Amino acid sequence: MTPSAMTPSAMERLWAVVPAGGAGTRLWPLSRALTPKFLLDLTGSGRTLIQATVDRLGPLVGDRVVVVTGAAHEQAVRRQLPDLGHVIAEPSPRDSMAAIGLAAARLELEDPEALIGSFAADHVITDEAAFAACVREAVEVAAGGLLVTVGIEPTHPATGFGYVRGGEALPGFATARVVTEFVEKPDPERAEAYLRSGEYRWNAGMFIVRATTLLDLLAENHPALAAGLRAIAADPSSLPERWPGLTRIAIDHAVAEPAAAAGRVAMVPGPFGWEDVGDFAALGAMTAEGPQGMKVIGDQSLVLARQASGLVVSSTGRTVAVVGLDDVVVVDTGDALLVTTYARAQDLKGLVDELRQGGRTDLT
Amino acid sequence: MTPSAMTPSAMERLWAVVPAGGAGTRLWPLSRALTPKFLLDLTGSGRTLIQATVDRLGPLVGDRVVVVTGAAHEQAVRRQLPDLGHVIAEPSPRDSMAAIGLAAARLELEDPEALIGSFAADHVITDEAAFAACVREAVEVAAGGLLVTVGIEPTHPATGFGYVRGGEALPGFATARVVTEFVEKPDPERAEAYLRSGEYRWNAGMFIVRATTLLDLLAENHPALAAGLRAIAADPSSLPERWPGLTRIAIDHAVAEPAAAAGRVAMVPGPFGWEDVGDFAALGAMTAEGPQGMKVIGDQSLVLARQASGLVVSSTGRTVAVVGLDDVVVVDTGDALLVTTYARAQDLKGLVDELRQGGRTDLT
Repeated sequence: MTPSAMTPSAMERLWAVVPAGGAGTRLWPLSRALTPKFLLDLTGSGRTLIQATVDRLGPLVGDRVVVVTGAAHEQAVRRQLPDLGHVIAEPSPRDSMAAIGLAAARLELEDPEALIGSFAADHVITDEAAFAACVREAVEVAAGGLLVTVGIEPTHPATGFGYVRGGEALPGFATARVVTEFVEKPDPERAEAYLRSGEYRWNAGMFIVRATTLLDLLAENHPALAAGLRAIAADPSSLPERWPGLTRIAIDHAVAEPAAAAGRVAMVPGPFGWEDVGDFAALGAMTAEGPQGMKVIGDQSLVLARQASGLVVSSTGRTVAVVGLDDVVVVDTGDALLVTTYARAQDLKGLVDELRQGGRTDLT
Repeated sequence: MTPSAMTPSAMERLWAVVPAGGAGTRLWPLSRALTPKFLLDLTGSGRTLIQATVDRLGPLVGDRVVVVTGAAHEQAVRRQLPDLGHVIAEPSPRDSMAAIGLAAARLELEDPEALIGSFAADHVITDEAAFAACVREAVEVAAGGLLVTVGIEPTHPATGFGYVRGGEALPGFATARVVTEFVEKPDPERAEAYLRSGEYRWNAGMFIVRATTLLDLLAENHPALAAGLRAIAADPSSLPERWPGLTRIAIDHAVAEPAAAAGRVAMVPGPFGWEDVGDFAALGAMTAEGPQGMKVIGDQSLVLARQASGLVVSSTGRTVAVVGLDDVVVVDTGDALLVTTYARAQDLKGLVDELRQGGRTDLT
């Protein structure tokens, strides 16, 4: 750890890496294979999730932003972000380690002291000042050679997220702690226990780390994958040939879990209001209730609710009337209509698979 | 009762009177003020309810059919029934006694022995042969000077219909009985008691009676109304002037109840499968269940249901997916979508009123 790494210049060496992928089946029919969640404006802000993500990163990294997305989405990403300088198009999905690792390998070549922060393209963050302060502290910690994750204070015993367990405070930093353990998505009993203990936070999938540290950690656990990524960075023309052979693995499993076990991971709490918008229940939770008790994404004046609650999403201009149903989810699009409940909002994958098998790829 | 009235010539003197009215709010957004229930094909047969009604009457009365409808619907009725010879357009709604009574007064002038049978334009009847047999017996009874109603065997303790109480069998007829009482829509306890007793049948609003008998019965109870109707029949040009002053009253109250009290009403059982399609629960009850447990009016192949039951009505060509809701009602039209339940299917009037007050008469 060099003293210079503790100065503001570490922020100047930070690149934001934005993995933009995901099938989007859990927000069908709003999200589709060709228009996944990150390309949609789900908050009614006028900006899509990926636009809001890049907006939020601007004050921290300027134009040092790399979006890593599927080849099928590259054009849409460029249309939504015309000023974006750096897009890596993956020839095929190879999970988050390859996506983030390739960006890290390219940046490492340009600047051996480069840091990366990976931030998903499809999360919603409400307090941008708190987010910026969190990232600044994480960068200071990461400059010293640790892998830094952001821990979100759990508000309920979620079973859809992994958790990080915080240990002792890291000396010299405002809020950072050592991470003693990464744990995968728990069952409901375990999630309750995590919540009660006060020691666990949600793993929001944000990692801040020196590019070289990330690749060196990867080389310890998956040497072929690390070597493959560094070889592609050294010779970009080898991407089409090498990419399909890379190991499909998530960054949590590939690097974060073994590094935590070795005491090389820190966590900075992220008290900034975070939502991964994983399904319609999550979308409902982040949406304000309208005057008739119904949450509406779209034109509130077109929705009539009587003794009803839940979420109506509509962009069709049609009047939507809901009578006598609680926690209902109505998603009205031009070619498909979904009616379900918050409780069943995670069960859409089978439906989308059925449509695909029935040849209705136009709808999925 | 003359012997000739018992011969087939009574059938040759029968005119069908088809009152076609109703606001249609209980099937909104399918039915609207300008396209009420009787103008819709709710059975998927390819024929609207009024077309099916006239089709069903053809074998009994040929072209001796008079439709009485609102001025706003006259053109639509003529478009749907281009061969129909007789349409009476009411300048304003004056309830069923005026509508049926005016037709009776006109027919009485042309043929003092004429009989009329009134059959609503928006009911569904499944067994047409049984219907025809029932009407033939009712006509034989009516030719003798009684007011004859059709009694439907109750299948559940409905609170949305009036009931008729059957007394002794009428000598000389196959199934006809004396009616001892007409009773209005009962509360649930009373409806249960009616069902248990076995003496009560639903009043389906079908009346078969000599035109002169009907008007004479009316004259006994509402002399001004009877005189007004006969005056309009004698001088059709006086319709616009006289019509607005006529008493607004249902035929049940005006004639059937007092006549029953006087022992002048008979009932013929109607074992032909009858449905008034009064709301979406009734529409669901008469619709066959699809392969996924959902009832569908429209293109079955466009509806995906998972752990769901109820009714989907769609003519928009959009895919409709319903997940995890029972007894749900989804009505998908080009400009309005309704999501509710069978249990709440009768509560739509307030919604439609709200839309009207909000200026959305285009939707109502």
